[in-house]
Formats: sequence, structure tokens, C-alpha cells
Amino acid sequence: MQVTKRSTCPVAGTLDLIGDKWSLLVVRDMLLYGKQTYGEFADSDEGIPTNILAERLKRLEAAGIIRSAKYQERPPRFAYSLTDKGRSLGKILLALVEWGAAHIPGTVAPKALKNKRRR
Amino acid sequence: MQVTKRSTCPVAGTLDLIGDKWSLLVVRDMLLYGKQTYGEFADSDEGIPTNILAERLKRLEAAGIIRSAKYQERPPRFAYSLTDKGRSLGKILLALVEWGAAHIPGTVAPKALKNKRRR
Repeated sequence: MQVTKRSTCPVAGTLDLIGDKWSLLVVRDMLLYGKQTYGEFADSDEGIPTNILAERLKRLEAAGIIRSAKYQERPPRFAYSLTDKGRSLGKILLALVEWGAAHIPGTVAPKALKNKRRR
Repeated sequence: MQVTKRSTCPVAGTLDLIGDKWSLLVVRDMLLYGKQTYGEFADSDEGIPTNILAERLKRLEAAGIIRSAKYQERPPRFAYSLTDKGRSLGKILLALVEWGAAHIPGTVAPKALKNKRRR
């Protein structure tokens, strides 16, 4: 899966990889809620369409942000986890949480993150 | 311009507003390069398509992230600037720069930002 780079700017480069409405929510589900499977991601409040979920998982894996491991043969089932590169997106997630919680009425910061920040 | 909220999660809410490949580049252009006009944004390395640029400027203004001021009557021309809410996206931009510079080969952090971080 080839991503064409738009410029040498690291902001643009990062947005080329994760700059859409869904990719970072999958990363959030893994990092904050420990979700691992297709079914668990599909079950999140935002209701990601399953075709988009499948495409994003492939794209995130191609970008080295997540990895997959087959945990069942018939039918084949995969568990997804973050790589080190993926876990390092945590700072971006935190900045998004803080901005959203400060500026978007009615949003509630994830409990898991509140606990992380307390440590 | 109505944005439908997908959930109460501040990450999802923020991505509903700026979670696309272009909006944060316009914010970057304003915050780091002091760009103000349609022509200046269109001139950036990424080559934003002009129809997308016009739509994003409207959307960012509707979200209270930027404001516009008419600086010429005939033909009408507008200068755009960040509101306080828009300037507070700086932390998200910084996190994107740091991740991109660390993980995407060939990217170069904007000089303006390096100066900001040195201060």
C-alpha cells in the first residue's frame, strides 16, 4: 500500500498516514481501551463502517503502526496490536483529547486517559 | 455548516472538525508561516486543490477556529487569521511535527517551529 508524500513537512507526512476521521480512533481503541479484534473496533460508539475499518487496519499495518497475529485458523481471525511506532502516537492522541475536551461542549475525556494522566 | 458528532469522545469530536488531510495544513500555514490569504494558502508545497481550500476555510470559520476580514472591496478579498481556539491547536501541530520528524524518513521540521521550540 503506497502513500504518496505531498511535501517534506512532517505535519503533512503524518496527516498522509493518519489524517482521516477514523485511523486515530482505532489507535485510541488499542491504546486506551486495550481493544484487539475487528469485532471490538466495530463495536465502538462511533460505529465505524466495516469496509472502512478493514481498509484502515490494512493501511495502519502497511505503515508499521499496528501488527496483526492470527489467533484462530478456521475461520481465520486476527488480533491487532500497536507497534512502538504506533504507541508513540499517544502524544498526538493526548493533544487531541485536551483540545476537544476544552473546546467541544459535551465531550468527555476517556477514563483510561484520565488514569494515565494522573500517574 | 453543521457537523454531526459521532460520540462524546473528545478525540472523535476533534477529528470531526479537523480530522482530514488539509485543515491542519491551513492552520500550520497561519501559525508557523503567518499566511493570511487564499493565494498564500494555495501556494503551499502540498498544492491544496482550490475547491478544497475554499471549503476548508468556510468549515474552519464555522467552527470558530479562524476568522475572516475583508481587506478589499472590488473584487472582495479576505484575510484569514486564527482565533484563540485556533491558536490552541498548536499543541496538536507540535505533536504531529514531532511524530512525523521521528518516524517518516525525509521530512524536515518547519524552521519557524524549530525557532519556537528553541525559545
